[in-house]
Amino acid sequence: MRVGDYLFEQFKLRGVGDIFGIPGDFALPLYQSLAESGLRVVVNTHEPAAGFAADAYARIRGLGGVVVTFGAGGLNMVNPIAEAYAEKSPVIVVSGAPEIRGRKIDTLLHHKVRTFETQLNVYREITGSAVALSDSATAGEAIDHVFETTMRTKRPGYIEVPRDIAFAEMGQSPRRAPRSRRDPAALREVMREVVARLNGSSHPVVYAGVEIQRFGLRKKLIALVERLGLPVVTSIEGKAVFPEDDPHFVGIYMGHIGSEAAMRTVENSDCVLMLGAFLTDVSTGIYTAKVDRSRVVSASAEAVVVGYHTYTDVVLTDLVEHLLRSRAARPRSFAGQPPRPQASWRVGALTSTAIIEELNTLLDPSRSMVVSDVGDCLYAAIDLKAENFLGPGYYNSMGFGVPAAVAAQLAVPEKKVVALVGDGAFQMTGMELSTAKALGISPIIIVLKNSRYATLEAIAGKKPYFDLEPWDHVAIARALGGDGARVHTRSGFREAFAHAQSSQTFFLIEATVAPRMSSVWARLAQEVRTMSERAAPSRR
Amino acid sequence: MRVGDYLFEQFKLRGVGDIFGIPGDFALPLYQSLAESGLRVVVNTHEPAAGFAADAYARIRGLGGVVVTFGAGGLNMVNPIAEAYAEKSPVIVVSGAPEIRGRKIDTLLHHKVRTFETQLNVYREITGSAVALSDSATAGEAIDHVFETTMRTKRPGYIEVPRDIAFAEMGQSPRRAPRSRRDPAALREVMREVVARLNGSSHPVVYAGVEIQRFGLRKKLIALVERLGLPVVTSIEGKAVFPEDDPHFVGIYMGHIGSEAAMRTVENSDCVLMLGAFLTDVSTGIYTAKVDRSRVVSASAEAVVVGYHTYTDVVLTDLVEHLLRSRAARPRSFAGQPPRPQASWRVGALTSTAIIEELNTLLDPSRSMVVSDVGDCLYAAIDLKAENFLGPGYYNSMGFGVPAAVAAQLAVPEKKVVALVGDGAFQMTGMELSTAKALGISPIIIVLKNSRYATLEAIAGKKPYFDLEPWDHVAIARALGGDGARVHTRSGFREAFAHAQSSQTFFLIEATVAPRMSSVWARLAQEVRTMSERAAPSRR
Repeated sequence: MRVGDYLFEQFKLRGVGDIFGIPGDFALPLYQSLAESGLRVVVNTHEPAAGFAADAYARIRGLGGVVVTFGAGGLNMVNPIAEAYAEKSPVIVVSGAPEIRGRKIDTLLHHKVRTFETQLNVYREITGSAVALSDSATAGEAIDHVFETTMRTKRPGYIEVPRDIAFAEMGQSPRRAPRSRRDPAALREVMREVVARLNGSSHPVVYAGVEIQRFGLRKKLIALVERLGLPVVTSIEGKAVFPEDDPHFVGIYMGHIGSEAAMRTVENSDCVLMLGAFLTDVSTGIYTAKVDRSRVVSASAEAVVVGYHTYTDVVLTDLVEHLLRSRAARPRSFAGQPPRPQASWRVGALTSTAIIEELNTLLDPSRSMVVSDVGDCLYAAIDLKAENFLGPGYYNSMGFGVPAAVAAQLAVPEKKVVALVGDGAFQMTGMELSTAKALGISPIIIVLKNSRYATLEAIAGKKPYFDLEPWDHVAIARALGGDGARVHTRSGFREAFAHAQSSQTFFLIEATVAPRMSSVWARLAQEVRTMSERAAPSRR
Repeated sequence: MRVGDYLFEQFKLRGVGDIFGIPGDFALPLYQSLAESGLRVVVNTHEPAAGFAADAYARIRGLGGVVVTFGAGGLNMVNPIAEAYAEKSPVIVVSGAPEIRGRKIDTLLHHKVRTFETQLNVYREITGSAVALSDSATAGEAIDHVFETTMRTKRPGYIEVPRDIAFAEMGQSPRRAPRSRRDPAALREVMREVVARLNGSSHPVVYAGVEIQRFGLRKKLIALVERLGLPVVTSIEGKAVFPEDDPHFVGIYMGHIGSEAAMRTVENSDCVLMLGAFLTDVSTGIYTAKVDRSRVVSASAEAVVVGYHTYTDVVLTDLVEHLLRSRAARPRSFAGQPPRPQASWRVGALTSTAIIEELNTLLDPSRSMVVSDVGDCLYAAIDLKAENFLGPGYYNSMGFGVPAAVAAQLAVPEKKVVALVGDGAFQMTGMELSTAKALGISPIIIVLKNSRYATLEAIAGKKPYFDLEPWDHVAIARALGGDGARVHTRSGFREAFAHAQSSQTFFLIEATVAPRMSSVWARLAQEVRTMSERAAPSRR
């Protein structure tokens, strides 16, 4: 078996059906192996888009892959892979490279920066495991290491394959069993402690984050919450990891910026059980969150932290499974949330909030997946009724929306994918709609047009460098072989959405939105502004 | 004086008038300083484009600058800055960053990857100097260090400015004189050796590269060549660093792939004086170049290498200046080149070669600047009569063309900028035309449309993953506020070009080209194919 064939077999074994990327001369043998593997090859328009697409696919399917060339390819994908690292998305980057034979220290090859190791060094900074294959005898072991680390930690991996290694025959190296950090004794000890804390508390709460989705724990979490009668909040990047129409769901917690009910529930709790969540500046509402660490149990892929001490030999999945079978008692009954009042929607100007309200009546949450780029649309989407939701709520790179929508439509073909994207983010990767056309898929893209970096304007006021050119997005959609419509009102939006749902090609709705931000962003911007002003007059 | 103000003052002192970038919340104080500095702020559509634009500006004006935010901004510009490193372009990246105060090891901030140093570590791999300011008292020294290193080595520099440092008052730190590697004794020794080699040779030749342009040595090189009567060849990335209509110019040397006259002149020479050139896989025509190192003197920003020994304390500029005043004798007279025969142009299909032939009659070389993206158009452009030419001939990243054209039109407003770009490269950064519209400038963009990665197809044959969607580029140009025309013939091209030259906005010519590559690419592809086939059946 050749190294390249073995490599792509590993993706198939783990349920991957589509691989993203852009070919280049150092990656030609890899592309040949890829084409022969039976995996679908999705060629993107630009490497940043390829990285976002593979990241989104990984978030949905549990693993994603992207194949690029050396230098101009690999180094053009650093930002999306950094995002995958920060948000724990298991995507593996496969990069071509110059032949191992004939490498001399001072050989200057195209796409080479400083040394042959430059790209590997860069990827070491932004992945959980990174290898450069140099010998077909040990290639299998190196490939296994990256796949195992990626699956276990949900951090991206990197495999560099020199042009003369891809077609080389695999060596028969002994397969080492992956190291495990899971110690049954440590699990027993932490379980005793957590159950005691739960049983001793009167107002426990579950704070669920993205790792619930990454490790496929949604059903177990629902069962656990049902059995113990616990209220649940989620983080913004964990939106929809727990069903938002479940009576146990309270809201998205973002310190004093998000849901007020969530804030009261978390900050009055005497036992906050964080499951796969991490506290960031965004999720804490720019540090307005007030959670005493002594009252927190936090479990993640890396460790379980109870109060101020850490168990490094226990992981999230084991804790959730054992809690489900434990003797944790049902605490003082949680009554469940009353149904949330309906907003007075369908009147007033078209805003990000209005679009979310409209989608709440137009979309069937079980038959759709919503993908959001960053910016105001992401914060407005906090109130979206969604079962399937993707948004880079922590790292917050613009440009995720359109490539992620394309990948999502491949990953869950049975659902209708709807993407929310600001006009600033659309400038970056919107042309990836071309890939939707090439694939014959028909996601709906909603571009919120306000011709400015409105989120920055909300922080710093009007500046000429926040202005964006007013693109004709519908003309662009048509130039790429899709369709679209321009809307300025709520009724216009509803009408366009009906067209979009029956469109045979991708459909872009250019929604000119009024200059009024979602309430969450308005509060976030106020916090950032306060923080910046505090920093501004700094002198030493 | 505040740190941010001092920083932008350094650009102005060195003749920079325009700074590129995209704002973000960590960069807001930097943008405020920038706006107050009087420098023009050019906001690009996407960070990869911002990087290419700043790189192109640096190649033309001797220094370029780009300001981005942390993480999502800085890490999205690694590839263009890597290209600037590989091709020695003096561009300085200024990145915002989180406040120094309040940083804790485990703080999770948006746009942060692994640690606060991740981005700095990445930039250390792709720059000549990289600093993260952490203290306003030493900020001035750190800034000076990066500017001085960048100007001296022509490698990119990186300055990270935390949000609470930008507005901090500068400390009064003593300015250290920059270290110099220039030793007069070493210069005397190398001069004796080089003059002896020149005087002892019967067929010397000058091989001029990009550093002639980077260090502003064009006039001195012309004078030197004139005085000594030497033939001159250039590298492809050094195209037009020496006037191509000068009788001393022989051609572009690319081993056995480029000009035959250049090959004979170099490979029969007994003294090859390489000035600011470097040998790469591309410039050696995939290693078909046959140059015996014992016959080479190579001077660059880093060192002077004579045969097999190296002088590290002598730099290119000093060598050129001293050669000009030296007693090197005029060798056996070089007769000069006969005028090159005219191609039988103006008939036949529209191809990349045909477009170059047409431009040779349509463009006034002294009043225009041609920018080429990579791919077949770059190799076809070898035969372009150009005085001002930009193309990333070594690192070869796609996507350079359109952003570089916008930057070039700002850097040399008195010249008409014409860009050559393939439809694959246009997919990556073509939307940067929006920035041309915002600036009210009117470069001409020629998109060579063949709906495939044709350069790869020439190597590996037809593959489904080489196909590109056929965009309607003219509709896109109009959607961005510009104009355009579609052409399929040589006469159509001439007509469209006349419209383009009088257009008030940018003008895009979509030229559907016949599937026939330039002769240089055809030969390059053959060499790559041979090399790949030799590598393919590798086994151990």
